[in-house]
This record gives sequence, C-alpha cells and structure tokens, in this order.
Amino acid sequence: MTDRTPVVVGVGMTPFASNRDDCNVRDVAIEAVLACMHDAELENFKALEHGLTSYESDHFNRQMTLGALLHDHIGLTPLPNVRVEGGGATGALALRTAWAYVKSGLCDSILVYGCETNGRSISSRTANQLFALSADVDWEMMVGGTYTAFYAAMIRAHMKKYGTREEQFAHVAVRNRANAKHNPMAQKPMDITIDDVMQSRPIAEPYKLFDCSLLSDGAAVILLSTEEWARQHSPKFSQRPKVVYTATGCGTDTMRLGDRYPHITNFAAKREAARQAYAMAGITNPLEEIDVAELYDSYSGVEIQAVEDLGFVNEGDGGAAITDGTFDRNGQLPVNTSGGLLGRGAPVGATGIAQAIEVVQQLWENVTPERQVKNAQRGLTDTHAGIGTICVVNIFERRD
Amino acid sequence: MTDRTPVVVGVGMTPFASNRDDCNVRDVAIEAVLACMHDAELENFKALEHGLTSYESDHFNRQMTLGALLHDHIGLTPLPNVRVEGGGATGALALRTAWAYVKSGLCDSILVYGCETNGRSISSRTANQLFALSADVDWEMMVGGTYTAFYAAMIRAHMKKYGTREEQFAHVAVRNRANAKHNPMAQKPMDITIDDVMQSRPIAEPYKLFDCSLLSDGAAVILLSTEEWARQHSPKFSQRPKVVYTATGCGTDTMRLGDRYPHITNFAAKREAARQAYAMAGITNPLEEIDVAELYDSYSGVEIQAVEDLGFVNEGDGGAAITDGTFDRNGQLPVNTSGGLLGRGAPVGATGIAQAIEVVQQLWENVTPERQVKNAQRGLTDTHAGIGTICVVNIFERRD
Repeated sequence: MTDRTPVVVGVGMTPFASNRDDCNVRDVAIEAVLACMHDAELENFKALEHGLTSYESDHFNRQMTLGALLHDHIGLTPLPNVRVEGGGATGALALRTAWAYVKSGLCDSILVYGCETNGRSISSRTANQLFALSADVDWEMMVGGTYTAFYAAMIRAHMKKYGTREEQFAHVAVRNRANAKHNPMAQKPMDITIDDVMQSRPIAEPYKLFDCSLLSDGAAVILLSTEEWARQHSPKFSQRPKVVYTATGCGTDTMRLGDRYPHITNFAAKREAARQAYAMAGITNPLEEIDVAELYDSYSGVEIQAVEDLGFVNEGDGGAAITDGTFDRNGQLPVNTSGGLLGRGAPVGATGIAQAIEVVQQLWENVTPERQVKNAQRGLTDTHAGIGTICVVNIFERRD
Repeated sequence: MTDRTPVVVGVGMTPFASNRDDCNVRDVAIEAVLACMHDAELENFKALEHGLTSYESDHFNRQMTLGALLHDHIGLTPLPNVRVEGGGATGALALRTAWAYVKSGLCDSILVYGCETNGRSISSRTANQLFALSADVDWEMMVGGTYTAFYAAMIRAHMKKYGTREEQFAHVAVRNRANAKHNPMAQKPMDITIDDVMQSRPIAEPYKLFDCSLLSDGAAVILLSTEEWARQHSPKFSQRPKVVYTATGCGTDTMRLGDRYPHITNFAAKREAARQAYAMAGITNPLEEIDVAELYDSYSGVEIQAVEDLGFVNEGDGGAAITDGTFDRNGQLPVNTSGGLLGRGAPVGATGIAQAIEVVQQLWENVTPERQVKNAQRGLTDTHAGIGTICVVNIFERRD
C-alpha cells in the first residue's frame, strides 16, 4: 500500500493587517485561495476533492455556517466541506483534521483555508468583550476575567518560581517584531528596543503593550494531498523540495486557570501535544532534531514557556535560553522567523495555518534571504487555544 | 494490516425536549456521555483516546470554544479534542470526521458528543432570528429570508413539477409523530391525523405548523473505535451484533437558493453525498440494500425530496411512495422510526448523532418492540445543513 501521509502541494496567504477595510471575510479567503492555487500551479481547480474551513467564531462576522458560505463563495461546491474549530488552535486543528482526512482515504486532496477578520470588524474594546466569551462565560467572565490577565498570572508564577525577568520576555517582543521586518506579509514589523518594551503602557502587569500580540484580518491556505495526487496535478511539486506533514499531536487542559493551581507556570497540554508529535515523528532530542519552529507567542512570555514545554530546554531555563540567542534568527533553533503573533499577526482561524506556511516555506527555501534558515530539514508549529486549553503541535519534514 | 474501519462501541442520549430547564448545555452533554459509558460498559474511562465536540453555534450559549469547555467539564483532559461544525449537518460531519480520525490511525477510540440547547435558551422569535444567521447574512437576511420560506419555495417547485400534494407530505408529519410514540427519548410523540396537519396554522405556505420540525434541547453521544480497541475495553461489544461504520459521503451546494434556480425541486448535494457513500459501501440498489434509515425531515416535504435524492425512488415519485406506505414502520424501508426531526426533535449538534444512534440500535435490535425493524442489516442516516447546503450520508452495517 502506498503511503498516504499528506504532502504540501501549495500555500497562500494574504498580508495580515489590523484593518483590511478594502475587503470582508469572503474576500480575504478568496485572495489567499488564489495565492495558493497560483503557488501550486494547479492545472485543474476541479481536480480538488475536499474543502476544510477554519475560523473561530460566528460572533466575529455575525454569520452562522460561514464554512458552507465560504466553500460556496470560493467555488468549491459540490465538493465535501467541513469546518473545524478550537479557539486559538483552530488553524492547527484544521490541518490535523485534514491530515486524518487524507491519511484515512476519505480524500486524496484537501484545501484547508483559514480566515478571520478580528481586526477590521471590531474595536479593541469589543474585541476584549468577544474574546472574553472564549473563557468560561458562566464562571470567569462574570468576575472580569480576560486572557491578558490569565497570561499575566501564569508568567508571574514563572517569574516567582524560576527567576524569569521582564527583560527576558521583552527580548521576544523585540526579536519577533524585528523578524517581521523581513516578512512582506507581516502586520507590524518594528524596530524597537528592550527599553521601548519596558517603558510601554502596562496592560496586565508584568505584561505591557509591546508584550501583547495583535488583532488581525487575514487568511491563510494550505493544499494537502497524497504524494501521488500532487505529482499528477501540480507541476510545481516536482520542482521544489518535497515537504511531508509527518506528525501531529494534541493535548488539552482545564478551561479555567484556577483549576490548575498551583501548576500554572507552564502549559501541560503543550507537553502532551509535543509528546505525541515527537513519538509520531521519531524525535527524541527536539532542540537538535528540529531546525525551525513557529511558536504561539500570544504574549511575549509565552514563548519562554513554550520552549520549555516543547522540550527545547528544561523547565525554568527558558528565559536564559531566549536571551542567549538560541532561538534568534542565527541561533541554534530559529523560532518565529515570520514575526510570530507579535509581529506577523494573528487572524485566529488563519494563525495555525500561517505558522505552517512559514515552516513549509523555510523547508522549501522560499523566504526572503534575511530570514531564511539554512539547511532546515524539519519544522514545527506550536499553536494553542485559551490559556493552553487546547494545544496542537504539527511537524513538517523535507524529504529530498 | 488490520482493518481500522470504526465500529460502534456505545451510544447514549438524553431525552430531547423543548425546554430542559433543569439543566444547561454542560449538563445535557454529561448526561448523554454517562449514558454512553453505561451502554458500552466501559471498564476504564481513562482508556479513551480522543474527544470530538459537535455543536452548531456560539450564539446559542453565548460561549466561544464550547468544545474545549465541555471536553474539560466531561473530564476528558488531557486527551486531544476537536470541534466540528456544519450547520444542520454538524452531528453527521462530526461522525464523519471521527471516522477519519480512527481510520487514519490518529487514535484508536473517539468519543463523539453532540449537544445543543436550542429550545431552552431561546424563544421562538429569537430562534428565528438566530437561525436566520445561518443563511447568508449579507444577501438573504436583509430581505427577510428564513429557512421555512426557502423550504416552502422548494416544495412548491416540487408540487408544480411533479404534482406532489399537501396531503402527501402531511402523511410524513402524521407518521413520524406516531413513530415517536414508541421512542421514550422523543420530544413530541403525537396522535394526529392528515386533517389535523391540513388544518394547522400556515407558517410559509404550503407548510403549516405540523409540517415543521422542532427546536430542542438535548445531547447524543457515540463512542467509535477500532474493533481491536472495542474488544479490549468494552465487554458489551462481544455480546451484541457488531456494527461497523462502513461509509460516509458529503456533498455541498450553493448557500443561496436563488443561485440554484431553476433546479430547486430537490437537493443536488444529497445526491452527491449518497453517490459517495453508496460507492464506499458497494450499494447499487439502495431501496433493496438498505433496511432502515433516518432522514432529515426538517419539514415534512423534505422527506419526499430525500427519498428521491437518496435514490430510493425516482425523482417525482416521492409523494406517491410516501403515501403507499413504502417508508412506514412496516413498509419495505422504514424511515424515521425514531420520530425524526418532526417527532423526536433536533438539538442541532446532536441531531446527526441521534439519527445514527437510532440506526445502530435498530441493527442491535435494541429498540422498543413497536418500532423494531426486523432483520435490519444496513442502516443509513441523511443529515443536512441549511437548504441542503451541506449534505452528509453515513452508513452503518451489522456484521455478525
């Protein structure tokens, strides 16, 4: 039997922006799909077998069954469609589900399109109210719980237990925005200093304005298929390195942070997701065996927690590893070369897909020279919902 | 390699009701999960490998990431979770996705739980407003489009083209409510006559009150796994007929009915879904080869359209086949023995799963004697979103 593990046929995305006021959610989806078709040099759009829609909430567009609507708008009827959701992890769960659809034989090709208009449709005040709906409405929202506060409590616990310092996570805020300068799709490329971060307005201490990621409009699309389908329908496939989607892991944790107390310094579900993905990919030493990674830097300190939970460094060593440059563009394991959520942006349903696009493009050696990682063979994406309530780790490998 | 096609390990559901005011969406989910665990006689809850949440919209509970919340509330952390959605087809898409998760090897067992509180949380006026959000908000809602009106236009076209009569679909309204009398989980068992239906209040002509299905609170759960996992963890599995989830098909159509004009008598996407499922199951003569079916009778006339689109009878012959008793409890192919959406009820995210439960229980010969179909070997579920915008056909087979 031939191996049905999906390969990446094509990728496409829109620039991410705080306000794509020239277009609505349908338009960004179409824009990214066309970019993906163009990238794959797909000879026959009608050869596609399945669509998969990735977006977070009906609330953002006041539209239910947006999956079916976009599927139609893109021109994918009568093909099958399904919509997948899991908060911030939506895009990564969409890919994971597409993995299963192809691997199981339900289809040979599947177009995974994620989109959101989090920036455009909502003011930052409304955004906070809406995102508060993704915490436990009955038990957290009533006490004014917001994500920034929950994340702040987590990094505070990390600081207390491990001596992690604000300057350390400020390094993430600076580096990821600097990386974004070399990504033409990035929302907020910036030249800032540690001092700029430290002096920026407090949001939920110790997190300050520059420690916080962005609200974005945008879309990201990946076409996955069996290798056989790719060879048959995409001339481009044979002209660049073969990238296989080799592994996927997913873990979950309690909805409420309080239910994890006192274990709130790190993301247990991320460890579980990584454990599964590493087992699938045969990875035993992640820092050595992974060459490029996109981490879920919803807040700067989360990257410190992530490099620990993903097993790149030991728990408590994240802060030092961040500042010693291990994860910088020229370090041992460059992370968030795209700019991450802090610099590239995060339209929720598109985020996990955009992370995968960065990793795949790195493996294809197809990014701007300034951010190109050399000889990358294996890339990882780390995406999560809520406060690590659902964590997904996906792994892509170059197989020349 | 062993066959990874999923088998059914256990099923559970709550009674469906117009207002479960004793409990919220979390409670109905738990109630159905416990019923499923009890049914499977699962020896070790911790043997479960994956959860999958099925619900339609954040709007009903004003809660985002309800999938993660319920997964936690049920006690499934740290297991992986994913939420699947596709309007009215949500539950059936959830099962289809679970099929792919098991078949692909991502997990050996998966608990698929669907729930909704459509009845309880909303008045019928609000319900109409909310459900209007599942039509195209930019282009249909503004002109007052509601589903009842769209369905009415479709059956009117069917009446005009094929001479279908109101009395014929009234037969569906009467029969399904009568079937519901033998289902202790049903929301609205009723003894009514054709005349009662004909005399009931017009909603969107030709549809009258009794032609319309219900808004419901409730939950439905199915545990799927590989056969090996089932034998290892559920003593019950070997004690009743083996039921395999053999096939699944999905088709889509335009979001707006107007875009299909003049082809609005039937559901093209349902034909596509059936075509795929029949090919997978090796079915060439569905009326002969299927023994029991749950059809998506969101409105009475939809059942007439469905028996045509599923290939049970030729297009245009549905009305006559319905009234000659072919699909009655003692007919050639009994449909909606559960009572259907008209009699059993339809909490959206649970509906497709409840349909599968009825079919599986029929194959297990585990329903009340009055509604038990004799010697059923193969059952089908037909579920759709919108006006057949996403259609899913799932097939379950007894393999003694």
